[in-house]
Amino acid sequence: MNDLVMELDSHSGRHLYEQIYDHIRREIREGKLLHGEKLPSTRFLASYLQVSRSTVDLAYEQLLSEGYIESRPYKGFFVCKIEELYDLRVSRDSAEGCEDEADRHFLYDFSPNVVELGSFPFRTWKKITREILTDEKKELFALGNPQGDAELRATICHYLHTSRGVNCTPQQIVIGAGNDYLLMLLEKILGRERHIALENPTYHRAYRMFRSFDWQVETISMDESGMRADALYESRADLAYVMPSHQFPTGIVMPIGRRLELLRWAARAEDRYLIEDDYDSEFRYRGKPIPSLQGSDQTDCVIYIGTFSKAIAPAIRVSYMVLPGRLLGRYRSRCMFLSSTVSRIDQSVLNQFIRDGAFERHLNKMRKIYGSRHDRMLWACRKYIANGTVSGENGGLHLILHYQGERTEAELLARAAEKGIRLYGMADTYIGRLPENWQPTLILGYAGLQEQEIEAGIRLLSDCI
Amino acid sequence: MNDLVMELDSHSGRHLYEQIYDHIRREIREGKLLHGEKLPSTRFLASYLQVSRSTVDLAYEQLLSEGYIESRPYKGFFVCKIEELYDLRVSRDSAEGCEDEADRHFLYDFSPNVVELGSFPFRTWKKITREILTDEKKELFALGNPQGDAELRATICHYLHTSRGVNCTPQQIVIGAGNDYLLMLLEKILGRERHIALENPTYHRAYRMFRSFDWQVETISMDESGMRADALYESRADLAYVMPSHQFPTGIVMPIGRRLELLRWAARAEDRYLIEDDYDSEFRYRGKPIPSLQGSDQTDCVIYIGTFSKAIAPAIRVSYMVLPGRLLGRYRSRCMFLSSTVSRIDQSVLNQFIRDGAFERHLNKMRKIYGSRHDRMLWACRKYIANGTVSGENGGLHLILHYQGERTEAELLARAAEKGIRLYGMADTYIGRLPENWQPTLILGYAGLQEQEIEAGIRLLSDCI
Repeated sequence: MNDLVMELDSHSGRHLYEQIYDHIRREIREGKLLHGEKLPSTRFLASYLQVSRSTVDLAYEQLLSEGYIESRPYKGFFVCKIEELYDLRVSRDSAEGCEDEADRHFLYDFSPNVVELGSFPFRTWKKITREILTDEKKELFALGNPQGDAELRATICHYLHTSRGVNCTPQQIVIGAGNDYLLMLLEKILGRERHIALENPTYHRAYRMFRSFDWQVETISMDESGMRADALYESRADLAYVMPSHQFPTGIVMPIGRRLELLRWAARAEDRYLIEDDYDSEFRYRGKPIPSLQGSDQTDCVIYIGTFSKAIAPAIRVSYMVLPGRLLGRYRSRCMFLSSTVSRIDQSVLNQFIRDGAFERHLNKMRKIYGSRHDRMLWACRKYIANGTVSGENGGLHLILHYQGERTEAELLARAAEKGIRLYGMADTYIGRLPENWQPTLILGYAGLQEQEIEAGIRLLSDCI
Repeated sequence: MNDLVMELDSHSGRHLYEQIYDHIRREIREGKLLHGEKLPSTRFLASYLQVSRSTVDLAYEQLLSEGYIESRPYKGFFVCKIEELYDLRVSRDSAEGCEDEADRHFLYDFSPNVVELGSFPFRTWKKITREILTDEKKELFALGNPQGDAELRATICHYLHTSRGVNCTPQQIVIGAGNDYLLMLLEKILGRERHIALENPTYHRAYRMFRSFDWQVETISMDESGMRADALYESRADLAYVMPSHQFPTGIVMPIGRRLELLRWAARAEDRYLIEDDYDSEFRYRGKPIPSLQGSDQTDCVIYIGTFSKAIAPAIRVSYMVLPGRLLGRYRSRCMFLSSTVSRIDQSVLNQFIRDGAFERHLNKMRKIYGSRHDRMLWACRKYIANGTVSGENGGLHLILHYQGERTEAELLARAAEKGIRLYGMADTYIGRLPENWQPTLILGYAGLQEQEIEAGIRLLSDCI
């Protein structure tokens, strides 16, 4: 097995053998365990997980009977031939894109990772696209600047300056098809021998990404101001990945004092950088917008990353990265030979969308819609959930509910699922073992639900918790 | 200096000091040499390049006088402060996208890397886009399958089967924003400890890409059938990158015997693969289309890569990769967490474009246009160029002209440039030192030129060579 990361929860109310079975089954279905791969012996696994051998036997028997693994005499257990498993995935895949079929059964899905798509300005987008798709603009069909079209970079530069307080020139901006791709470029720019500090809990995709670079990853504990600077100084990190405007998942807004501490840390040694992921800062419902960390940086230490996935739509595969001036040489020598990943047509449409003021209008509209949903969520939680308190409010697209009852987080998720509610627990955003005395915490996204759905969902949820 | 790869050509007709000056200047302008970086001492460089010290002195003096480098007493020579250099690049950049300003002065540009954009079916593309951009299809604005939308994968699968003889299922296809990105995924799938064999000459971007992965790169000599199998067996490679349908730049079509030899090589050891880059095989003007190597593969060894950049337009940032079944598990565990780099809207438009038959019609039209240009180029070369022979004909978007006169390749390029002709020499596609007795060879692209331009350009060229 690739890695034996299997955590059993003896309080979850599910049999231990079921948890083992679930874990291995998922690994096989997701292709993490491959055809022909040998499973650990039942004796080894039992001792490793500190459970009885009969528990592991039970799990393996179930997997055998369902055809996920096979037993070879005197040799042990092996993952079954994979074609059948492809078929499993295929039928699901072709039916529903990449969605899990289970998705369809939920009445209320509190995902923090969706946006409201019904309000997308189709007509405006279509009009701009029509104007751009003419043979007079045939140069748009040629390959563009690897860094992104100069016009769009100038537009984004202006937008970031006025709305986020980012200080940069268009020459510092790199446009790419999504944050994942931009992080892949960062790997090339920053090199392989890196040690990155992450908040904990954090955005799990970024964590997986950094792990896939073979960067050393270290988690840094947080207090109510976010990543602790003293702990960062004690680490061996030369990079720190932070979300100062609205940390995911906690929703913490990093105060200016802590920001300056982090900036000082970065300036203290050569070639240290802060990676600022400003993923949802467009949405702020009370007070003034939180300015970017990059805007306070005097020492050329911040790599700023933003996206149009939340502000427009996830399908608009356009993200942008603002590089410190001193990294531009390395960007040019290591990445400029790579073709842009965003079509010039899409870049032009987006550029026009922003320049025409349509983006600003769309943002204002969405701020209103999401603001109302946020308020309704806050109100509903306070009204219906007696044994929970809310934090991380006033911005972004989700709230945090701290549960003070008797149940475990896994129990809450399971009980809600039975009622048709899909919940997201904060434990899943933790790296490594959960802290002692972990209090169940829910990440309640509201962007994809109507106000009445939010209220009905929370009311229903109150019965389960 | 990052790497002292500087090859001097004593036959090029340019002073050696000018070649050294040119090289360093370019490295600085392109950001490969950074502000403050120390240059090697003149003594060291002279001994390294086997030239006199006064030659290096002359080159450094020129760089000093132009402000690219500065001399610090007792310390040596350093690259100047970089801001001014940014401005150099910036002004060019903002004026012209990423095009070199020199581009504008050429009357005839025989680039092998352009396509005819005037024939793009704007109306059809626009019509399909209009149909797709409606709020009834709002799910298109959500994030799609990381591997690419199932419908487009099914469409590409069918297209590849019928037109290229590729054997695969849609589950083996991965869609990404350009070949560079797909190769970045391949790095994740295949891992870092790899040794890749390349033809020589080859496609230089692929070479740079593999180098950036830190893969060991080994060049394998070619004969008239392409990559030599005996040399491949002697190498330590576990990957081989080939373009069997129309090798770039030589235009060699690999015969079935050699293909089978390469397939046998791959099957000989575990975890060996052939990467087939089928970059322009849509265009074949005589006889039957050349089937893909992947179609002959019985042992699950071929990774097939194709693109719509040549067949539709470079701005359509859609490439596809067909993975062998046995790599799917690794793809899923190592890459499935990465979001797709192609917007679902673009995927849907492309899907409809192919399904409606518009792609086939467009290809037929372009085959006719490119076929006539190919014929005109062949005819013009034979008519006007007495001291050259042509090879690599009947397919793709370029021809090869083998020159049998007295001049060096660099001289030909320089003389043509004076007349307003942009030529591309094969020496630039070579990795490492050129073979002894190198015969000047030109890569003549014709896709971006009208027939009368081709004839006029070649006639003008005949005066220079």
